[in-house]
Amino acid sequence: MPTLPLRTIHSAHHHHGWDNAFDPVADVAPGDSLTVQCLDAAGGHYTQTSTADDIAGVDPARVNPVTGPIRVDGAKPGDCLAVRIETFMPSGFGWTAIIPGFGLLADQFTRPRLHLWNYDVSGAEPGLFGSFARVPLKPFAGTLGVAPAAAGHHDIIPPRHIGGNMDIRDLAAGTTLYLPVEVEGALFSIGDTHAAQGDGEICGTAIESAMDVTLTFDIIPDAAPSFPRFSTHGPVTRHLDGRGYEVATGVGPDLMQAARDAVSGMVDHISRREGIAPEDAYMLCSVCGDLRISEIVDAPNWVVSFYFPNVVFD
Amino acid sequence: MPTLPLRTIHSAHHHHGWDNAFDPVADVAPGDSLTVQCLDAAGGHYTQTSTADDIAGVDPARVNPVTGPIRVDGAKPGDCLAVRIETFMPSGFGWTAIIPGFGLLADQFTRPRLHLWNYDVSGAEPGLFGSFARVPLKPFAGTLGVAPAAAGHHDIIPPRHIGGNMDIRDLAAGTTLYLPVEVEGALFSIGDTHAAQGDGEICGTAIESAMDVTLTFDIIPDAAPSFPRFSTHGPVTRHLDGRGYEVATGVGPDLMQAARDAVSGMVDHISRREGIAPEDAYMLCSVCGDLRISEIVDAPNWVVSFYFPNVVFD
Repeated sequence: MPTLPLRTIHSAHHHHGWDNAFDPVADVAPGDSLTVQCLDAAGGHYTQTSTADDIAGVDPARVNPVTGPIRVDGAKPGDCLAVRIETFMPSGFGWTAIIPGFGLLADQFTRPRLHLWNYDVSGAEPGLFGSFARVPLKPFAGTLGVAPAAAGHHDIIPPRHIGGNMDIRDLAAGTTLYLPVEVEGALFSIGDTHAAQGDGEICGTAIESAMDVTLTFDIIPDAAPSFPRFSTHGPVTRHLDGRGYEVATGVGPDLMQAARDAVSGMVDHISRREGIAPEDAYMLCSVCGDLRISEIVDAPNWVVSFYFPNVVFD
Repeated sequence: MPTLPLRTIHSAHHHHGWDNAFDPVADVAPGDSLTVQCLDAAGGHYTQTSTADDIAGVDPARVNPVTGPIRVDGAKPGDCLAVRIETFMPSGFGWTAIIPGFGLLADQFTRPRLHLWNYDVSGAEPGLFGSFARVPLKPFAGTLGVAPAAAGHHDIIPPRHIGGNMDIRDLAAGTTLYLPVEVEGALFSIGDTHAAQGDGEICGTAIESAMDVTLTFDIIPDAAPSFPRFSTHGPVTRHLDGRGYEVATGVGPDLMQAARDAVSGMVDHISRREGIAPEDAYMLCSVCGDLRISEIVDAPNWVVSFYFPNVVFD
């Protein structure tokens, strides 16, 4: 980490969607670090007094703003952009929502629901969900990407081979992300910071929360990966695995349906055992439960497992 | 654990496929423990002098033998059979194979390949793969299931809602598995023991190895789950996560293709970086790399990630 004060890119310098015609808001040289202020995925729409009635008021054209683009000197198509994710400075306020029409079980959960979080910015204490659940925190950025070679405007929601809205829980502090450079200067942007999420982000939202993120950039010439790669600096689940897991499975010939069955089974199990609303169980599954593919070779059936950490209710 | 000598079910009492007409080879009462000798998935076909030429000699009708069935007194359709997996006594000999036509990347890996393992039965030392890779061990059973209600013979290879060939890496010592009972007495069988495997079992085989497994049975009345569930007694990846992971992703609208892209990316990365044969990288990915669904809601694209533990090459 540099000892000099870092440059900061303010969140006012954000954009919606990907477009290689966007002008860069900052230039960095390989080896440089800087701090990027990231808005939450609703661009600050929710406040301490928000309710589920406010979900409908989010403008779909304004969701998932990303700060940037940042031009990396010397990056050229075919290179690999290495982004080391140094630190997160979380805001302490976040939200999780069930948004009608969105999420793995959108057919089962059709009504809007909003949970607000006020969490410990040091990360030492878990985030409280009512009086009954404690969710370990692990800040990360949901959206990190570079401008695609293809001209025009590209929707921000789907992740792409150039990264973007990947929502990978382990893109946390200490991790290095490798992205393919497709245009001169790479044009990197970041946003959609989360205080916690499980693998899958199954209800469609995490603990969505504005944060400042410090990054260091580098270029590996002529080493563009086909899809994003990353290296973690250590274990990835120790914030929540200490007491083991309750696991539900789905078994069948379609991975998507197996994932849906596994999550449905866990929502049923948790809501019955704990006596909580299925909607609350669904949101908790999204912020701390992990979807894993246990078996993908014993045709015609595969096994998808959903791991829910016991520490949340212990 | 009981202090009296346990009953042992010899591996001679095995069967192929599932059929509720198979006669039970043992009866247990709820609360009883017993030890089950399990053959490996090739029924002892491979020995210390086997080579890839021996792969073609495996009789498809004789693969994946399971020991049993064990009748649990009082279990009736609609109940949940709880099987606590107490301990494993591994044989110390195992094999991993690339079997033509089988595995996630069967189109890329068309030639047979066999690796033999002689590993530390205490599990304290990693399994050695040539001079270049050390694979942490975690014994578990790949196949645990009960007889289905549907009459007739059912192939052993595909996993089912009654369990079977699930190949879930975390069905290890200390875990309790919950299965739906479909016939009187449940008729439980177990086999296909593995000394190590990653989530997905991507090349189609793990460290396949005969073992004795000690189990304790219980019945939870009228609580049959729709699909298998299980509870782990603690963390599930600490045997291999200490030095973090190298991770490759696949991004796209089909989870199966995304999984294939993620694994292909990792095989390329490992084989180039370590200077090893792609076939060896593929087998190593199968015995210790994990497939996870990182994002499954940002339509139309999903993210599947393949996690390879750094400890293997460190």
